[in-house]
Amino acid sequence: MLLYNTGCTGNINAMKEFEITPDMQREDLFETVSGLDHLGNEISMPVITEKPLTLFLNGQEVVTMMTIGDFPEHLAIGYLLNQNMLQLDDEITAIDVDMELDIVVVRTPRKTDFEEKLRKKTQTSGCAQGTVFGDVLEKFEDIVLDPDAKVQTSWIYALSRKINQQPSLYLKVGAVHGCVLCEEDIPLVYMEDVGRHNAIDKIAGYMWAQKISPKNKIFYTTGRLTSEMVIKAVQMQIPVLISRSGFTAWGVELARQAGLTLIGRAKGKRFQCLSGQGRVIFDADPSRIMDEEKKHQRKAGQ
Amino acid sequence: MLLYNTGCTGNINAMKEFEITPDMQREDLFETVSGLDHLGNEISMPVITEKPLTLFLNGQEVVTMMTIGDFPEHLAIGYLLNQNMLQLDDEITAIDVDMELDIVVVRTPRKTDFEEKLRKKTQTSGCAQGTVFGDVLEKFEDIVLDPDAKVQTSWIYALSRKINQQPSLYLKVGAVHGCVLCEEDIPLVYMEDVGRHNAIDKIAGYMWAQKISPKNKIFYTTGRLTSEMVIKAVQMQIPVLISRSGFTAWGVELARQAGLTLIGRAKGKRFQCLSGQGRVIFDADPSRIMDEEKKHQRKAGQ
Repeated sequence: MLLYNTGCTGNINAMKEFEITPDMQREDLFETVSGLDHLGNEISMPVITEKPLTLFLNGQEVVTMMTIGDFPEHLAIGYLLNQNMLQLDDEITAIDVDMELDIVVVRTPRKTDFEEKLRKKTQTSGCAQGTVFGDVLEKFEDIVLDPDAKVQTSWIYALSRKINQQPSLYLKVGAVHGCVLCEEDIPLVYMEDVGRHNAIDKIAGYMWAQKISPKNKIFYTTGRLTSEMVIKAVQMQIPVLISRSGFTAWGVELARQAGLTLIGRAKGKRFQCLSGQGRVIFDADPSRIMDEEKKHQRKAGQ
Repeated sequence: MLLYNTGCTGNINAMKEFEITPDMQREDLFETVSGLDHLGNEISMPVITEKPLTLFLNGQEVVTMMTIGDFPEHLAIGYLLNQNMLQLDDEITAIDVDMELDIVVVRTPRKTDFEEKLRKKTQTSGCAQGTVFGDVLEKFEDIVLDPDAKVQTSWIYALSRKINQQPSLYLKVGAVHGCVLCEEDIPLVYMEDVGRHNAIDKIAGYMWAQKISPKNKIFYTTGRLTSEMVIKAVQMQIPVLISRSGFTAWGVELARQAGLTLIGRAKGKRFQCLSGQGRVIFDADPSRIMDEEKKHQRKAGQ
């Protein structure tokens, strides 16, 4: 089974702008709480849901994630793929979600390599987080991103504008990160969560379920370009990563190793590209780009 | 051995404003990288360091943290305390830091309860993150925060102003969170890191090393008020938590359970208090508080 269908150029023709977004009508994504404002007045305001979701791979407890709770099946699969815990030849027979018990179980017909490795590791030194991390970096070095992918600066501006103006949990209650899978200047898959790593994992899971090719895709995030975000984007084989926020040195270094195009601090007319500059086509006139209207100014997430 | 010296009201008299802050002169906290700006011009800019640091408790590997790398000994101790992996009666005999190997080892004279628990747990189901999480919540319920602590709104405004104007890694290169331990309107201990959880853990470790009482302290953070931040503040027995950023529902719920005063979105004259309102004394006239100058506007972190 292929994790991502890299044999085609993507099914963009079958997908519309914002094909999938958080369901703003879902009442369980918010809670209304009361308190005081700075004047001492009683207030009542909606805040975002956050709850633990424990992920199992067959009988193996993997991690407890703090999430808003939508798309748990995509979150589970995306996490396992991006952590290198599921491999290309692992078949998935079931994804069981129990939102009352706050668990999601991903089932494969037989034990995965990861479970074997984890079992072996935990018998010697206890917790295998370090081992798993080493595994991810090991695979990272083998990934080759599409050298022919391009990103036009006009797309960067169009994506920023469309994503900022799209109704979102962020605009409604704040305190969430957003990640968006895009092709050219079209935002396709928009996910939000309290952790940016959850939002990107949900997109990875959705791409797997829908067999969406990562080739020629652009990944947009509100979060910082840390090592974690770069590793996940590369694991997903997406050649271009754009953020409203800043960089870390290791994020830049890993992006350069993998040949990932890394664009940060993309707000208004400004951005910086610190890796994979060869993919950028400067087709827009920045002097014609308006600074963001105050009401659409989205904070750079951290 | 007491984790925090709760028997005194703190050694504020012995500490000056910003007693400890990130060392802006340390060259290893930044890296200068080159790239292109939005006009296609060559640029060179400093970005924040990020590197893995693996924490061991005696022979037990605990976690790999992504950090800027300053104060590794405080980060290690603070992490173990806040995760409930070190207890009141655990004596620490050594903290060995090897920044070339990227490891820090905390040593106790005999195995801690946590190591025993982890060993038992990992023999059955592999990785004990869930168990550890359960332990933290269990202890959480027993903690009683100082009911007599107060926070004057004039302090909130003064702290925001002082912290925003203090030279910081954030102002220099961005992409970091800041956490500050304060008493009344005085910022005492200022730590920054790529993860807000690291910044708060470094403060917990520093408090332990310096035997600083959490009573009557105020904790200020640039990060969101998630369950993780609330749990850590309560573990540290600090009665007031203030953020420039927003809330999650579970963060509010946990704060109410523990009787923590939770103040969010504290920017310019505005803020909201969604838990522990009884500690707030409205002694400032918000109409006299200036909105933040643009150059001192700090983004609300996510």
